[in-house]
Amino acid sequence: MSVSVYLEDSGISGKLVESRRVSAQNALKELWSGELDFTGWVRLPEKITEDSLSKIERYAKQIRESSDFLIVLGVGGSYMGAKAVIDLLGERAAGTEVIFAGYNFSARYINEVFEKIRNKDISLCVISKSGTTTETLSAFGIFRKYMLDKYGRDETAERTYAITERRSNYLYDIAEEDGFTVLDIPLDVGGRYSVLTPVGLLPIAAAGLDIRALTGGAAEISDPKHFAGGALDYAVTRQLMYDFGKRIEVFEFFDPYASFFGEWLKQLFGESEGKEGRGLFPASLMFSRDLHSMGQFLQQGTPSFFETFITAEKTAQDVVIPEEGGEFAGRTIQQINTCAVDGVYAAHVKAGVPAVKITVDSFDPENVGELIYFFETQCAVSALLSGVNPFDQPGVEAYKTEMKANIKSL
Amino acid sequence: MSVSVYLEDSGISGKLVESRRVSAQNALKELWSGELDFTGWVRLPEKITEDSLSKIERYAKQIRESSDFLIVLGVGGSYMGAKAVIDLLGERAAGTEVIFAGYNFSARYINEVFEKIRNKDISLCVISKSGTTTETLSAFGIFRKYMLDKYGRDETAERTYAITERRSNYLYDIAEEDGFTVLDIPLDVGGRYSVLTPVGLLPIAAAGLDIRALTGGAAEISDPKHFAGGALDYAVTRQLMYDFGKRIEVFEFFDPYASFFGEWLKQLFGESEGKEGRGLFPASLMFSRDLHSMGQFLQQGTPSFFETFITAEKTAQDVVIPEEGGEFAGRTIQQINTCAVDGVYAAHVKAGVPAVKITVDSFDPENVGELIYFFETQCAVSALLSGVNPFDQPGVEAYKTEMKANIKSL
Repeated sequence: MSVSVYLEDSGISGKLVESRRVSAQNALKELWSGELDFTGWVRLPEKITEDSLSKIERYAKQIRESSDFLIVLGVGGSYMGAKAVIDLLGERAAGTEVIFAGYNFSARYINEVFEKIRNKDISLCVISKSGTTTETLSAFGIFRKYMLDKYGRDETAERTYAITERRSNYLYDIAEEDGFTVLDIPLDVGGRYSVLTPVGLLPIAAAGLDIRALTGGAAEISDPKHFAGGALDYAVTRQLMYDFGKRIEVFEFFDPYASFFGEWLKQLFGESEGKEGRGLFPASLMFSRDLHSMGQFLQQGTPSFFETFITAEKTAQDVVIPEEGGEFAGRTIQQINTCAVDGVYAAHVKAGVPAVKITVDSFDPENVGELIYFFETQCAVSALLSGVNPFDQPGVEAYKTEMKANIKSL
Repeated sequence: MSVSVYLEDSGISGKLVESRRVSAQNALKELWSGELDFTGWVRLPEKITEDSLSKIERYAKQIRESSDFLIVLGVGGSYMGAKAVIDLLGERAAGTEVIFAGYNFSARYINEVFEKIRNKDISLCVISKSGTTTETLSAFGIFRKYMLDKYGRDETAERTYAITERRSNYLYDIAEEDGFTVLDIPLDVGGRYSVLTPVGLLPIAAAGLDIRALTGGAAEISDPKHFAGGALDYAVTRQLMYDFGKRIEVFEFFDPYASFFGEWLKQLFGESEGKEGRGLFPASLMFSRDLHSMGQFLQQGTPSFFETFITAEKTAQDVVIPEEGGEFAGRTIQQINTCAVDGVYAAHVKAGVPAVKITVDSFDPENVGELIYFFETQCAVSALLSGVNPFDQPGVEAYKTEMKANIKSL
C-alpha cells in the first residue's frame, strides 16, 4: 500500500470515528456481497483477464500505428477518468495524442479540433453507456461524416471504436451495421466507476500508458482485507463532517496536471452522494495557483468546509533554480513545492480548518490505479453510511427531459 | 447595457430585496467617494488615457513582431483576468500566443513550456504587484537565465516587460538596473481588480485582442447612475442568500472557453468576501460537461447552494449537424446549446434550486469589459453589505509565512 491517509487534523475525534467502524465494515460487506446493483466495479481489477488486456493493447497499437490523433467522444463517466489519468501521467505517454470532444455544445471547440487534425490521420472512439447521449452523439454525427468523406465507409469502420453496453441502442446498432470495433461497458458498472473498463483503458493505452500497471495497482488493494479495521476511516470522517455541519469537501492538489483528477472526484462523490437532499458539495482546487484566489477564503471564510489534500512526495522531473532566481537560487522547484504543501497544511490547521491528508510516493500508473480504487471504495462506503444509494443518479434525467423536449420543438 | 440580470427564480422575495436597496446604494456611494483604500478600479475605465492605451498597443505590437510566444509570469490577480479574457475571446485573437507560467511549482510544467518554445522567439512579461511573489519570481529566475543565454543582456532587456508597483522591490529594482520596460500597477488597485490595468491589458493586447473595446465596454457602465435603483439587486440577493443559510454560489457557464472566467470570479468573490468567518464559497461549473458530473447534486443534493447562470445568447461560430447525426440532424450546435441552457434552468428551478441568470448578447470585447466591471461592482457592494472590507486579504499571508520559513530552512 502506498496510499497513506492522515486524519489527525480532521477535527473529528478518533473515538467517534472508531464507534462507526462497524457500520463502515458492514457497508463494505454489502459492496462485496454481490447483492447490490452496479457493484461490478468492486471485483473488476481482479477479474480483468489477460485476454481482455491484450485485446485493448492490440487496438491501442492499431490506433498508434495508423493515427496522429485519437478523438474520444464521451461525457461524464465516459471520459473524465481517462482524461484524469492521461493528464496526470502524461509525461510517460509516448503514444497517440488523445483529443476529448463530445462533452460540450461548442461550435468553436469542434472547429478548433478540425483545425488541429487537418491533414492528419485520426481514429475515433465514441463512448456512451446508453448509446443515446446528446452531447456525444451530436458530435459523433459531425466526426463520422468527416471520416466518411475522408476515408470512405470501410476504412472509417476500421478506424472507429464504439464503447457501449452490449445491447441494442442507437450507437450499438450503427456500430454493428457499419462494422466498428465494439467494446463492452459491463452492465453492472456505472459510468463514474468505469475508468478501469475499456471506457478508460482504451484511450489510456492509446496514449501510450501502461494499463497493466494501472489495473495492477487497483488489484493490489481490491480485497476487503485492505479496507479492514481503520482503513475506512476516511469514509467515516467524511460522514461525521457532514453530521457536524460541514457542507463542502475541498480536494486540493499541488500539481497542475492533477486538476482533472479533481474533476473525476467531483463526479464520483457528487453523483454518488448528492441525493435525497444530502451530500457534501465537492470542490477541487489546484495549488499553489488557487492559494492566490481561494486561499483567503480557506483561511478565514465561512467555516462550512473541510480540506482533503492529495499529494505525491516525489515527481519524475525537477528543475534547479539558477543564480538569477535571487533568494530561491539553488533550490529546486520540487523542494519549494514541498515547502508549499507543508506550509499550507500548517497554516490551515492552525486556523482551525479540518484537514485530511492523502499521500502517495509519486503519481505513477500503479499508484494512480490504487488511488482510483481507494476513492471508489471510500466513496461507496461513505454514501452507504449516509443512507443513500451510491450507484444511481435519478436527478440527472430532469434536465435531459427538458432539453430533449426543447430540441424536438426546434 | 447588454448585461441583463434575471432574479425572479432566486427564491428571494422582491420586497425583501427592495428593502435593502438603500443600503446597497450607500455602499455604492462609499465606493465612489474616493475615501476607501484600493478603490482606484472604480474610476479606472473612465480614466484610461489615449496615451496609456497607445503605449500598451505599441508594446504589444513589438511583442507580436518579435516573438512567437509571450510568456506571462504571474499568479492570482496577476494572470487570472488576462487568461479569462484571452480564453473567452480567443477566436478573435490573431496575435502572439500567450503562455502563462509562474503560477505553480511544477518542473514538468516548466519543461513543457521549454519544449514548446524551443527554437522560437519569446518575450517575457513578469507581473507581481509586490515584486516578491515566490511562484512568479522562482519562475522568473529560470526564464531569465534562459533568455540571457539565448539573447544576451541587451536583447533580453528589450524583450522583457515588468509590471509591478512603481516603488523599490525585488522585481522593480532588477527591472530598473537591467533596463526592462516597466509598467505600473496603480497603488490604489488590488490584484483581483487589476485586469483593466496593464496587468491584464498588455497580455490581452499582445494576444491580438481589442483593448479599446474591452475598456470601452467597462467605461460604458462605470458611472453610479448605471447601478441606481434595482441595478444592485444581484449583490443584495447574494447577501440574502447567505442570510437564509446558503453557503455556496455556483457560477455556471455553457461555453468551455469560459471556465477561466469562472476562476477569475472565484478569486474576485472568494478573496473579497471570504473573511471574518463569512462569505459564500464560490464554485464554478462548465456545462454541459458538468451536468454529467455535478448535475445530480445540483438537482437533488444538500440544498446549501444557489446557482448563477452566465450565458451568451449568440456565438460567433456555428456548426450544422449533418445527416449522420440521426435525430439531431439539421439542428445546429448553438441551437442545441440554447436548448440545454433553457432545459437546465427549467429543471433546476422546478427542483426548487434558487437561480440567477446573467445574460449578454455574445461574448465580445465590449460585453466582456462590461461584465468585468459589472462583477467588480456587485462584488464590492456585496462585501460591504456583508460588513467586511472587500479590498484586503489578511488571510493570504499565513501560508506564505509558513512556506517561506520552510524554504529558508532547506
